[in-house]
Amino acid sequence: MSAAPPAPSASRIRGSVCIVGTGLLGASIGHGLCARGLDVILHDISPSNLRLALDYGAGRPAQPDDDPVLVVVAVPPDATAQAVLDALGAWPNATVTDVASVKMGIGAELLESGADLSRYVGSHPLAGRERGGAIAARADLFVGRPWVICAEEFSDARRIHEVEGLVLELRAVPVTMTAREHDASVAVVSHAPQVVSSLLASRLSAASQGALELAGQGLRDTTRIAASDPRLWVQILSANSGPVLEVLDAFRADLDRVIASLRDPDASGSRRSIADTLSAGNAGVARLPGKHGLSDRYAQLVVMVDDRPGELARLLGEVGETGINMEDLRLEHSPGAAIGLAEISVAPDVADRLLQELQTRGWTIAGALA
Amino acid sequence: MSAAPPAPSASRIRGSVCIVGTGLLGASIGHGLCARGLDVILHDISPSNLRLALDYGAGRPAQPDDDPVLVVVAVPPDATAQAVLDALGAWPNATVTDVASVKMGIGAELLESGADLSRYVGSHPLAGRERGGAIAARADLFVGRPWVICAEEFSDARRIHEVEGLVLELRAVPVTMTAREHDASVAVVSHAPQVVSSLLASRLSAASQGALELAGQGLRDTTRIAASDPRLWVQILSANSGPVLEVLDAFRADLDRVIASLRDPDASGSRRSIADTLSAGNAGVARLPGKHGLSDRYAQLVVMVDDRPGELARLLGEVGETGINMEDLRLEHSPGAAIGLAEISVAPDVADRLLQELQTRGWTIAGALA
Repeated sequence: MSAAPPAPSASRIRGSVCIVGTGLLGASIGHGLCARGLDVILHDISPSNLRLALDYGAGRPAQPDDDPVLVVVAVPPDATAQAVLDALGAWPNATVTDVASVKMGIGAELLESGADLSRYVGSHPLAGRERGGAIAARADLFVGRPWVICAEEFSDARRIHEVEGLVLELRAVPVTMTAREHDASVAVVSHAPQVVSSLLASRLSAASQGALELAGQGLRDTTRIAASDPRLWVQILSANSGPVLEVLDAFRADLDRVIASLRDPDASGSRRSIADTLSAGNAGVARLPGKHGLSDRYAQLVVMVDDRPGELARLLGEVGETGINMEDLRLEHSPGAAIGLAEISVAPDVADRLLQELQTRGWTIAGALA
Repeated sequence: MSAAPPAPSASRIRGSVCIVGTGLLGASIGHGLCARGLDVILHDISPSNLRLALDYGAGRPAQPDDDPVLVVVAVPPDATAQAVLDALGAWPNATVTDVASVKMGIGAELLESGADLSRYVGSHPLAGRERGGAIAARADLFVGRPWVICAEEFSDARRIHEVEGLVLELRAVPVTMTAREHDASVAVVSHAPQVVSSLLASRLSAASQGALELAGQGLRDTTRIAASDPRLWVQILSANSGPVLEVLDAFRADLDRVIASLRDPDASGSRRSIADTLSAGNAGVARLPGKHGLSDRYAQLVVMVDDRPGELARLLGEVGETGINMEDLRLEHSPGAAIGLAEISVAPDVADRLLQELQTRGWTIAGALA
């Protein structure tokens, strides 16, 4: 469900939007567009999925005289090409896009069909959750996330512009690349990491209960996406097998080198080889843009907060009184613990003042990092 | 730095604590014990490291007549056995523990030395950060985290009890296991994941800038620990090579199967094999205790919050007025965005009421999940 702010007087989309497939992505697009005051029509071959998405308010049921300006195909990758062809046929004026995680194979299937593809522009929002379905949908799923638009030779400029309008309405960031560039990119930033995380998590099946109780945030983070839906991912990986293999083959060559070094860690060159692997990991992760730099750009104060209603609000109210803007806030508390920890990120030049202001007001600062 | 709450009148530790090595763990232990009102003596072979830890308030400099009841050796794994022997010699009454991430090799080295080990009890706090050094230290690093105590045949019961006292003072959770159990456990929950995360992150070095801009939270999470210190980790991995290899060999066998399936995804059995890998990942990650279940146990409301001082406090103040206890709070905002999103977790039976209360007060709910 989502609460709709007033509709913008001039939306980038001048008409109804039809969403085919009401899983996580389709329903989230529906919520997002409804929240922008747009007319959203929902289709799903599964009546129960459709009912669920309608109940949650992601859009309205189809009517015989619907004439959408834009159709968003949000069905599993295996079914996408056919659903795009069906949509092009059913609504002869509409722009049609899809949101599948792989683009080359779908493009090839569409070209093979011989259909006129001038109204089709493939796309892919880089957004998701481990949980699927309309029940996990949220209007903000795409806010600030990249959304790839694959312009090909056959793409009409006006149609590309309409898909851009969709992306902007959902407050995502349009990124233009070819299907080939897209598939190679997602292989390295999404598909191969999915395989690696799943393989790592599957090692936990053999672990003792005692071992699992030692698990920390590092393991939780590396295995979080291993909770993803196998039915969806087997389609994605199969459809993008070439680019994914390229990454996994290189990964395996590196893994073999580490394994060989660990078989005889005291042999000449072994430690150097292991250190090189770890350093290469440092260099790789440092290339990631965005939030990773957060803890470098800001100073953090960790404040102890009693775990009862209103205490956190009292803390943040007093932070607000200082006029200092929080850049980020993370709350941690162990189940059953009587206190929580609030990690407040602020600009480095105001951290000392905030520390003093909070201490003066009686807060316990568990830690501070410049 | 840390602010000290009043010292408890009856600490579990009846005397001074000496910390040898003032990196992340040593300095964090120092902060934590200072915060409990204890006398903390700092040692470091590096005068500049020592100066930094002293400046940050992790303890006081050593004096000739120091007579600690407990010595905590917090130096790199390679140097730990010798530092434990030195500590046993330097302070003939003190209990000596260490906090190295590997226990078998250190135990073997100590036994080989022929020294009397009745005052030594090895231990290992499962806590850390990607960043090291006294500058990253925090008093709360161990709160709620497991801290393994390795009782061996040679361990004196009173000494074990004293190390338990240290663990409890720092509000960590003591877990008793043998060195062998410990090393096998950390291989699967910490050391092999470190290797896998580093190998995955190193694939990013070859990725295009465009690909990196598509990176999402999944990739960030799987590669976060790849930012860890290579110098420390080459020691840990070399010292625990046997148990780590056991995990990595099994991982590689699984990886080989996925690679073979992806070479011919349409062959009979290929998709089934890929799906099995992904399902095994589901099963593995489901075994992890704790926070992973948070989103299952609680309902989430996502509320839009203007990015200016006091707004979040106003929201949380109004949540507090409802008498509803927040179980968790996550704040997200993109750099430069004018709004942020606050994801509030509450018990499922009060989620609807909170939704209505907040909407009545004019808050925009971007999403809600039962």
